[in-house]
Amino acid sequence: MTYCVGLKINEGLVFMSDTLTNAGVDNINRNRKMKNWSVRNYRSIVLLTSGNLATSQAAISTINEQIDQSELEDRNILKAPSMFKVAKIVGKILREITSEYTIEGQKSDNQYHSTFILGGQIKGSEPKLFLIYPEGNFIEASDDQPFFQIGETKYGKPIIVRAYDKGLSFGEAIKLLLVSFDSTIKANVSVGLPIDLCTLKGSSFKISNQVRIDQDNKYFKNISENWGSSLKKAIKSLPTFQEDNCS
Amino acid sequence: MTYCVGLKINEGLVFMSDTLTNAGVDNINRNRKMKNWSVRNYRSIVLLTSGNLATSQAAISTINEQIDQSELEDRNILKAPSMFKVAKIVGKILREITSEYTIEGQKSDNQYHSTFILGGQIKGSEPKLFLIYPEGNFIEASDDQPFFQIGETKYGKPIIVRAYDKGLSFGEAIKLLLVSFDSTIKANVSVGLPIDLCTLKGSSFKISNQVRIDQDNKYFKNISENWGSSLKKAIKSLPTFQEDNCS
Repeated sequence: MTYCVGLKINEGLVFMSDTLTNAGVDNINRNRKMKNWSVRNYRSIVLLTSGNLATSQAAISTINEQIDQSELEDRNILKAPSMFKVAKIVGKILREITSEYTIEGQKSDNQYHSTFILGGQIKGSEPKLFLIYPEGNFIEASDDQPFFQIGETKYGKPIIVRAYDKGLSFGEAIKLLLVSFDSTIKANVSVGLPIDLCTLKGSSFKISNQVRIDQDNKYFKNISENWGSSLKKAIKSLPTFQEDNCS
Repeated sequence: MTYCVGLKINEGLVFMSDTLTNAGVDNINRNRKMKNWSVRNYRSIVLLTSGNLATSQAAISTINEQIDQSELEDRNILKAPSMFKVAKIVGKILREITSEYTIEGQKSDNQYHSTFILGGQIKGSEPKLFLIYPEGNFIEASDDQPFFQIGETKYGKPIIVRAYDKGLSFGEAIKLLLVSFDSTIKANVSVGLPIDLCTLKGSSFKISNQVRIDQDNKYFKNISENWGSSLKKAIKSLPTFQEDNCS
């Protein structure tokens, strides 16, 4: 499985992904699920992938081929005039790859499906964040839905729902996502370290905080170890149930 | 969907279940998923049900019929000499109902499946907690696995994993489960209030704290409203991510 989150705050975008992939429980590997492209002072694009790894890798290779081979606005994500157009290109590539294997390949239950989170900014426009479905269509983040999760999303959702605020700083947002990832990793063996992280500050057109967090990372260790006791304290601070609370 | 938890602590057993059932998003109802049987000063048994409602109800009706109609130890859960035997009776009933509809009925993807949590105590033995699979076989709770969840289990798992302690009092354990339920309800519309609660104190052979918690319950409101701020405080108490944490 996989766990990836893209989060929109006032300052910009934050992206986080785990690296565990598996084909059955006895075939476990590490793979980077975060990819980015930039044109200095002009645009930055980040893609997070979940689902079938062959489909995700084929999509990224096709995106790269089209960057190299085409100058067309509706083929090359570094030439597209808006993030909406970038999402359309990526969605189209994803749909074509999936349907190729679905129509021509062996019958298989959803096995060729991937879901992507796409974020970025092009000069002259705000940072944008999209969730791209296996069918290639997509939705955009908004104030009502300021983050997208893909993969093993449920364990880590409640903490983001409760603690998200669009005024968070990058440092605070990264901390929040690390807690969400830690909760997921503790509850499900199919999501695992190391974690890849990057941020995109509004109008910087530059990917920052590009870090791989592994089990030796002191900051993550600190968060992971102290979150348990912080949570216990938080629970303790609430009033205990008494039988007369029943009424 | 459904969310039910059975939890074992030193003092005894705690059970909690939501009441929302749905057949499609436009056919939503409330149904009690918690059922209990007692013989004064001798035994108490609690059953939580998830999955296909027809299967769950048929299983409960069959359990009741066999209580009324049979004196046999391997048919009547109020005569069975151990909780292991009670679990075998319930598992057999579940398996027979499921296979009846699976073999004789229309083809359907897992639609006749139910999963149960069964707990209780019979005089002369410790309180026991079981998870009964749709196939009718079952596993028992232990120090390594002191709680079982069924239904929409993922949202509410991390908080239990982190904050569970077998030394919790009943009041603290109920508070913990209410936070877990609140997290789930906030994240997923298929789980909903009211919540049914009951506890079984070791060697009391009596079901206590039998409460239905609805949206007007002041204690739950208090927990739900204050959990958000407690969680934010807990996050705040952790050090913020700095770029030099990357190394």
